[in-house]
Amino acid sequence: MKPIQVGLLGIGTVGSGVFNVLSRNQEEIRRRAGRGIEIACVADLDTARARAIVGENARVVGDTREVIANPEIDIVVELIGGYGIAKQLVLEAIAAGKHVVTANKALLAVHGTEIFKAAAEKGVVVAYEAAVAGGIPIIKALREGLAANQIQWVAGIINGTTNFILSEMRDKGLDFDVVLKEAQALGYAEADPTFDIEGVDAAHKATIMSAIAFGIPVQFDKAYVEGITKLSAVDIRYAEQLGYRIKLLGIAKRRQGDATKRTPDGVELRVHPALVPAKRLIANVEGAMNAVVVHGDAVGTTLYYGKGAGSEPTASAVIADLVDITRLIEADPAHRVPPLAFQSHTLREAGQELPVLPMADVVTSYYLRIRVADEAGVLAKITGILAGAGISIDAVLQREADEVGGEGSTQTDLIILTHDTREGDMDAALAQIQGLPTVLASITRIRKEELNN
Amino acid sequence: MKPIQVGLLGIGTVGSGVFNVLSRNQEEIRRRAGRGIEIACVADLDTARARAIVGENARVVGDTREVIANPEIDIVVELIGGYGIAKQLVLEAIAAGKHVVTANKALLAVHGTEIFKAAAEKGVVVAYEAAVAGGIPIIKALREGLAANQIQWVAGIINGTTNFILSEMRDKGLDFDVVLKEAQALGYAEADPTFDIEGVDAAHKATIMSAIAFGIPVQFDKAYVEGITKLSAVDIRYAEQLGYRIKLLGIAKRRQGDATKRTPDGVELRVHPALVPAKRLIANVEGAMNAVVVHGDAVGTTLYYGKGAGSEPTASAVIADLVDITRLIEADPAHRVPPLAFQSHTLREAGQELPVLPMADVVTSYYLRIRVADEAGVLAKITGILAGAGISIDAVLQREADEVGGEGSTQTDLIILTHDTREGDMDAALAQIQGLPTVLASITRIRKEELNN
Repeated sequence: MKPIQVGLLGIGTVGSGVFNVLSRNQEEIRRRAGRGIEIACVADLDTARARAIVGENARVVGDTREVIANPEIDIVVELIGGYGIAKQLVLEAIAAGKHVVTANKALLAVHGTEIFKAAAEKGVVVAYEAAVAGGIPIIKALREGLAANQIQWVAGIINGTTNFILSEMRDKGLDFDVVLKEAQALGYAEADPTFDIEGVDAAHKATIMSAIAFGIPVQFDKAYVEGITKLSAVDIRYAEQLGYRIKLLGIAKRRQGDATKRTPDGVELRVHPALVPAKRLIANVEGAMNAVVVHGDAVGTTLYYGKGAGSEPTASAVIADLVDITRLIEADPAHRVPPLAFQSHTLREAGQELPVLPMADVVTSYYLRIRVADEAGVLAKITGILAGAGISIDAVLQREADEVGGEGSTQTDLIILTHDTREGDMDAALAQIQGLPTVLASITRIRKEELNN
Repeated sequence: MKPIQVGLLGIGTVGSGVFNVLSRNQEEIRRRAGRGIEIACVADLDTARARAIVGENARVVGDTREVIANPEIDIVVELIGGYGIAKQLVLEAIAAGKHVVTANKALLAVHGTEIFKAAAEKGVVVAYEAAVAGGIPIIKALREGLAANQIQWVAGIINGTTNFILSEMRDKGLDFDVVLKEAQALGYAEADPTFDIEGVDAAHKATIMSAIAFGIPVQFDKAYVEGITKLSAVDIRYAEQLGYRIKLLGIAKRRQGDATKRTPDGVELRVHPALVPAKRLIANVEGAMNAVVVHGDAVGTTLYYGKGAGSEPTASAVIADLVDITRLIEADPAHRVPPLAFQSHTLREAGQELPVLPMADVVTSYYLRIRVADEAGVLAKITGILAGAGISIDAVLQREADEVGGEGSTQTDLIILTHDTREGDMDAALAQIQGLPTVLASITRIRKEELNN
């Protein structure tokens, strides 16, 4: 049988990985897929570099439309990234009847609904294993491996740059700005790191996971996104003393409403730094590695760990999609795994049944660091306000004034860990506490996730 | 469309989990699979108990053949276990044109070749996600998620009973026999725990993973199997001091031969206790949990963690197989994932190309504990023998005699960690060392796996 013909749009880091792995392992891949898979054509603005990578083994063109229009091409792999031209090209490839493989989380998190609809109408596949957690087959685990489960929550370290920075901050006791510069020098952070450090990249990936976990549409606009730029070394140290690590988590959680607590049914979709018990495996995921914890009602807690970025790890995911498509390319589309895990006619409408909840309705626990005057009655006042708001306290750590502010200091840090509470109630209590004359600086509030069930 | 009709052979722990999860999540599962999945018929010797579980929702029979002969049944789920009657029933179900889902690792590790051949001839699927690592979708990860890779090695904690025992031995400093009794009382170990504690169960699972990782047939008879019964608390403690944990690992490793070291090409297939660096995630997998590390040439190191046994975790895997079969039940068999990951006509013959290597040809590093007379020159003598055999030493730890044998003791323990060496060379060196008059007891030798690349 003629090998499957693949066209690459963009041959940068990931594209060259796809080319290299497909070449190196072509025999092994053919033995698995039952048919060869070949890159026939590559489009890149830098045709010279593209030619240097593929040599005589594939046609190189400067115009992406040439790949899409080529009737020989079965599958188009989009590796350009972003929402702009990439969206246009993916829609054009679909319109031309090509199957599409993409690593573009931004595109799918924002325009996924439109893209999957277009693909369904044309009867083609849009596959995206590489869009979340790089080489870790987490999309396959969620869509297929855990198909028996009502998924209850997903929580992941899904951005390598921020995990590298947090690991370094903890290991070396350094502040964010210093480590960011180091990460940029080492190539772990981009020159403009905004999407990573502000949590946007993680939120794209969490949005995609929320859709396939719960059968809801991608709703990036409803995600809560908070990065790591405001974290300080002191909070990482206090967290450590309390038995926690701070990680940037992408969380998608199904929440059963509770009328007595004024919480509705819905989905929490949020990215923010979180204290995680140091004994959990995910708390021990270091450097640029990724890991996703999935909790299902039947299977319990499972975890998936690996490289979340890089040339060949991402290529591994792209090629797994190529193999999946190859197996079913001549089969009735009814036999395929639905793009968002659930048959498309059974997907919930945005906002129906399982709406993404506003942050005020999120339920989680908290780490609070409150800079206070070192005088009698302060703790009683603060815990009184929390109790009044129905927020129960798990632990309190009061530092010695000398330790915090130096010899003779009259200020100290009060560290409070709370039990689960509604974020809206916490906001209200914190506003009150912040107004106390004995509270001397902005309160630091970091969410805490036990990830235990 | 009429729901897929499933027949259960055996409704014990796993069978009742399958029934309960399919009932509870039927709507969610139907939305994923595109078609309902129903248990229509259950065969169990204990028909009263079976009826108590399924109520009026499925027919209960005492004779398994009634399920197999029932023309309404699309998929037979075999949950009887063992090589005996289960093999006969699986072959009969295949002969009757039924697809088969099984959690039976023993059966597949020993008779897999015969069973997959029969299934291919009849054009039916034999699916077995539940056979390895319970609810963790590791078969799917190896067969599909990592299809781009040349898999280099797989190493897993794939027996919960032994991991529970080892965790307790370490936590509480207790010896094997004591903890085994505790594990039996808690239900973590069976009344006859032989298959678990002697490593046989782990070897069944490692055998299956070796086949799908490397495209070789299942060859349980060639697996090296060593359990945990001879481990003592003192070795766990010494390992800890050196920065290691002892875990029972199932290992399948592709080994590139090296003529200068007299090592041939082949596959290492072995189950034994191993020292693993404490900082690796897998070293921190505690209690009855399972985890499998897979190293692929493109993706690097990935890890999969979750519950390896139990009613609903195992049911999660069984049902994932039911969903996969449901999706493709009306498709051409050519569209299916091949049972052993590689297209069956491309599977290597046993012993061809990638033979399972005898233990003498395995290459690994070692922990040695040698009880010696506390006198000058002993260490020099022993290290001299190792050097003569070309075995290089990574670290030596010599305990104070008093610490080992009590006040005034004239004996001490010498702990040696080696670098990688051929097991045959180690055997020869240890025979020499054991013969020294200053060596006072049987040498303890535990393999060490760095799992770093």
